[in-house]
Amino acid sequence: MRIYDVIDDKRNKKELSEEQIDFWIKGVTSGDVAEYQSAALLMAIAINGMTDEETYHLTAAMADSGDKTDLSAYGDATVDKHSSGGVGDSTSFIVIPVMAALGRICAKMSGRGLGHTGGTLDKLEAVDGVTTALSEEAFAKQISKIGLAIAGQTKDVCPADKILYALRDVTATVESIPLIAASIMSKKLASGAKNIVLDVKCGEGAFMKNLDDAKKLAGLMVGIGRRAGRNVSALITDMNEPLSDYIGNSLEVQGAIEVLKGRTDCPLYEVAKALCIRLSGEKDAGEKIDETIRSGAALAKFEAMLIAQGAAKDVLSKPIVKAKCTIDVFAAKSGYVEKIDAMKAARAVLALGGGRNKKEDEISPHVGIRYLVRRGDAVKEDDPIATMYFDKYEDVAIAKEVMDAVCISSEIPEKKSFVLDVIE
Amino acid sequence: MRIYDVIDDKRNKKELSEEQIDFWIKGVTSGDVAEYQSAALLMAIAINGMTDEETYHLTAAMADSGDKTDLSAYGDATVDKHSSGGVGDSTSFIVIPVMAALGRICAKMSGRGLGHTGGTLDKLEAVDGVTTALSEEAFAKQISKIGLAIAGQTKDVCPADKILYALRDVTATVESIPLIAASIMSKKLASGAKNIVLDVKCGEGAFMKNLDDAKKLAGLMVGIGRRAGRNVSALITDMNEPLSDYIGNSLEVQGAIEVLKGRTDCPLYEVAKALCIRLSGEKDAGEKIDETIRSGAALAKFEAMLIAQGAAKDVLSKPIVKAKCTIDVFAAKSGYVEKIDAMKAARAVLALGGGRNKKEDEISPHVGIRYLVRRGDAVKEDDPIATMYFDKYEDVAIAKEVMDAVCISSEIPEKKSFVLDVIE
Repeated sequence: MRIYDVIDDKRNKKELSEEQIDFWIKGVTSGDVAEYQSAALLMAIAINGMTDEETYHLTAAMADSGDKTDLSAYGDATVDKHSSGGVGDSTSFIVIPVMAALGRICAKMSGRGLGHTGGTLDKLEAVDGVTTALSEEAFAKQISKIGLAIAGQTKDVCPADKILYALRDVTATVESIPLIAASIMSKKLASGAKNIVLDVKCGEGAFMKNLDDAKKLAGLMVGIGRRAGRNVSALITDMNEPLSDYIGNSLEVQGAIEVLKGRTDCPLYEVAKALCIRLSGEKDAGEKIDETIRSGAALAKFEAMLIAQGAAKDVLSKPIVKAKCTIDVFAAKSGYVEKIDAMKAARAVLALGGGRNKKEDEISPHVGIRYLVRRGDAVKEDDPIATMYFDKYEDVAIAKEVMDAVCISSEIPEKKSFVLDVIE
Repeated sequence: MRIYDVIDDKRNKKELSEEQIDFWIKGVTSGDVAEYQSAALLMAIAINGMTDEETYHLTAAMADSGDKTDLSAYGDATVDKHSSGGVGDSTSFIVIPVMAALGRICAKMSGRGLGHTGGTLDKLEAVDGVTTALSEEAFAKQISKIGLAIAGQTKDVCPADKILYALRDVTATVESIPLIAASIMSKKLASGAKNIVLDVKCGEGAFMKNLDDAKKLAGLMVGIGRRAGRNVSALITDMNEPLSDYIGNSLEVQGAIEVLKGRTDCPLYEVAKALCIRLSGEKDAGEKIDETIRSGAALAKFEAMLIAQGAAKDVLSKPIVKAKCTIDVFAAKSGYVEKIDAMKAARAVLALGGGRNKKEDEISPHVGIRYLVRRGDAVKEDDPIATMYFDKYEDVAIAKEVMDAVCISSEIPEKKSFVLDVIE
């Protein structure tokens, strides 16, 4: 077999065989296939597409390219969730403790943020003392002791995906539904959980800008997971507005803690609860899930995890957010909040230093925004609508962007749910 | 400007601007654009195509990427020809001496053979003593003294094309009409001749398998050349059968010399004469061209060139072909020669060592085939139909392939011309 012929077949819109895809991915991992050859093949895939069959084989080959986590000792109790990346999306800090409180095993491997979306590891490490760099042994021990952990990858998982993702990033081939699906699902398969829920974000602040593409991606990933013997379902959730009132690393942890303490009347809990229902496998699990909040069981699990990963014993009785400066932001005019623009809010947080433009960038853990209003709220000119948290005095000018993200209209907007669809 | 956006635009079927194409080609030449980025862009072009406008800018940018030959001192007298590569195609050895005999200046830069088609430089160097590695000064002096030279590139011509061609060769992006047109025409523009004729081969033994593609390629190249201020026309010629009875390096020189000595009743002269008519710019130039053969003027020019480039003074009175062994090949059955299969014949010569599979391969200059029959000839079983020239005794088995290339039918085939179309 020659990689030339594999490229040529995909260029000519032929379906690649399992053997051809395996040959490519083994060559990527070993270095036998040159980067320029993978770049040409990725572009041919990005333009000509892949069948579901090809996408499954690509996912499986990438999952097999490195180490895998074996969670089989826990049987069917293991759960995992994945979000395709949103603004103010801290559902992991609710879903994982709730599922742990329900007796499930939550061994979650997460990533760092890049561009306008935050990363779970960055958020968790914004809490004083907390580390996400756990050894394989420490990770396994924590799981077996308290049932939950959120950490960076402890092994060399999916090395072929890492190489191909880096290439896609510089060759304009990131936006491709089969390539996105294979990249996400290869890591989920290698992570070993039996039950997986996917949160596919859809809207201005997400990779998937429209519902059709989001449904296609979700359906494809659910199909891949099922074929690999996992219980997988997906939600499609709105990402035109930030999911939480809080945007920024430590701020989002603060927002999640508020929910765990009982503030359940918000979109963040709406989506987190819907994800937990899918993971539980029972449609009427809502009451049990609410009970983990009311009883404090979920909060206790989150506290135990923070402490196990390095936080002080009194972590929850001290402030999580420690920005040097705060400033209130006021409404420019009277009316109704039509929406909070997710991309504008995210760009303001990026400008404050809360995110990365390049992988090497350092982030400021305590900068960000807390919006005090939501879609549909009536506001009067000069009402406070947000608090901005920042580190450098000169960044005070960014308050204008925080204000501009709040769109105020003379009409009351329609109500809407953040959960747009369920794929199972 | 970022190369990422250039790739992304072509991926999304947008027309690239002159500035975008210049930016890419300058980056290719300087090394600022990575090979994997060019590979992705080449694949996007191969699949999504290029407009004529884009193809022109790509050609001009590649022509500008290196040195150019300045032939302006010769005014409109300069001529050049290019063939897209065929089997038994030695028209250069007829066209160049004929045009020189007509007083034109023929400063031809040629290439080596790769795959099933031979290279002009390899053929010329198969003649004892002849070199094609002329210095810039020697090349210019020879042109001014005798009016013709055929040599390898004396300067760093079109370095961007060299880099991109090497990439296309390993990423399945060779077959692309705009990329082929830009590659050929960039070198022709850099070579400086005012009058250019293109011989676009069409058929089983050529890159262009069908007439529509050949016409598209020819039309595109003629348009590019005209826009750049050159007189360009193109012939589309048949390449289902070898153009000459001789296939192999020194054998093809021998075949051309026979034509120059007066053997004009053959397809090789038919095509060479048609090319010369286009180059002369006069439709009724046929008689003048025939006269350069009858008078021996064209042969004298060819002889002068061989001697100027290192051959002995008596080169034409000694054998050109010096293979160690020859063997006659006989007809397998009686009937009419339906055709000689160009690809089969070419593969037999490649197997004998007359061509290269890889750029590094050495070639055997004197191996090859002389077919003794042509399309339409009646043959009887066991009649001699070819002579095979070879160097190694074990290659005698290849005679079977030489025989198999001659397709014998019970019906007389239709007559046909090798010149299929003229584009001007």
